[in-house]
Amino acid sequence: MMQNIETIPSPDLFELYKDGIESKTVVIIDILRATSTIVWAFENGINHIKPVLHGEEALKERENGYLAAAERNGQMVEKFDMGNSPKSYDREYIEGKKVALTTTNGTVACHLASSAKRVLIGSFLNLDAVVKEVQNDKNDVLLFCAGWKGKYNLEDTLFAGAVASSCAKEFEIEDDATYAAMDLWHIAKGDLRAYLNKASHVKRFKRLGNHADLAFCVQQNITDIVPEFKNNTIQ
Amino acid sequence: MMQNIETIPSPDLFELYKDGIESKTVVIIDILRATSTIVWAFENGINHIKPVLHGEEALKERENGYLAAAERNGQMVEKFDMGNSPKSYDREYIEGKKVALTTTNGTVACHLASSAKRVLIGSFLNLDAVVKEVQNDKNDVLLFCAGWKGKYNLEDTLFAGAVASSCAKEFEIEDDATYAAMDLWHIAKGDLRAYLNKASHVKRFKRLGNHADLAFCVQQNITDIVPEFKNNTIQ
Repeated sequence: MMQNIETIPSPDLFELYKDGIESKTVVIIDILRATSTIVWAFENGINHIKPVLHGEEALKERENGYLAAAERNGQMVEKFDMGNSPKSYDREYIEGKKVALTTTNGTVACHLASSAKRVLIGSFLNLDAVVKEVQNDKNDVLLFCAGWKGKYNLEDTLFAGAVASSCAKEFEIEDDATYAAMDLWHIAKGDLRAYLNKASHVKRFKRLGNHADLAFCVQQNITDIVPEFKNNTIQ
Repeated sequence: MMQNIETIPSPDLFELYKDGIESKTVVIIDILRATSTIVWAFENGINHIKPVLHGEEALKERENGYLAAAERNGQMVEKFDMGNSPKSYDREYIEGKKVALTTTNGTVACHLASSAKRVLIGSFLNLDAVVKEVQNDKNDVLLFCAGWKGKYNLEDTLFAGAVASSCAKEFEIEDDATYAAMDLWHIAKGDLRAYLNKASHVKRFKRLGNHADLAFCVQQNITDIVPEFKNNTIQ
């Protein structure tokens, strides 16, 4: 039987996709910025990130040798070692370290999906590697867009469309959210950054002075690493 | 201040859009088929439809002189006078009558939105009339896609995109779901029926033998009537 692929447009719709998740591979997508930053951190020598739901949990993990990272509403939170910007995850700062991370959308999605057979971390930085991984493992796939506070967003949808487009020949697709994502990717892929300039999160993001992070997060295939969430940690 | 426009991709996300709804106009969108059928019924001389949540409620309204109409999972329900197909709403059968209607998605959305300033019934059959109505009333607008059992669907999204595209010059748009809908409409509008042939609901629909209804529901601007839901009835 062909592998099946579906797109979850928002964590608030996750309940509708839970049936049979134990046999599926879920790809967590939070392009701006949690999953891009996590992938970048692994590329730079980290091998252990614990996604937690609350800031206090992250701070408490300092006792166990973790750096504590927190983002809320697109900004780093005071008292923490770092936020959610890939800039904070350069090799000289994080190589060999462990990080406990909480973010507005992405880390929530990780925990929601934890009963899946596999939970992979996807971003444009490791796009082709994610595609190869889901093609090889033969499981049905859920592309899980973290969105923005429950709302649909363009950047996560486009990544879902990019993965689905690469898999369209081998996979069975009967899901409108995936069809829509593929068509949007087709429009956007020629100049992803220009296309995203109209996205609501991107506008919010620029108001916070995060232009450089946007340019960083739309880079494609700068690593082959696909971090995986299992036993409560991304490794 | 410019009017604002947002798209709700699924009734299961409605909670995220409730703030300030008392001053907004909501357009209910259930292209296959509730809102198309309601618009067609009004075009054919009905002037009173009561959307109800349960079949028993619809049957009970027979005592008050209503026809009882029910659709579940895309099919008419036994014991009812009619289902959700526009075919059942021809003038000779319904002119001057009242209908109590329950459907899987559309009537649910009506009730969710009932605290809005205005609740309009939108479909391709009355597309331009809906656009004119929301442009004239000066309220902010929520385009409310009824979807399929909580999931995102293409046909409702495309109608949202059609309305938003017609309003884009006058309205402020800062909502990713609306941008996506507009871009999808741009792709689909040249041959809406062909585009929708890939949609999951359309496939489900055809398996049920509803080809003719699809052709009917993609017709544009065959009436200027915009039915409105108020005081628990569409009138």
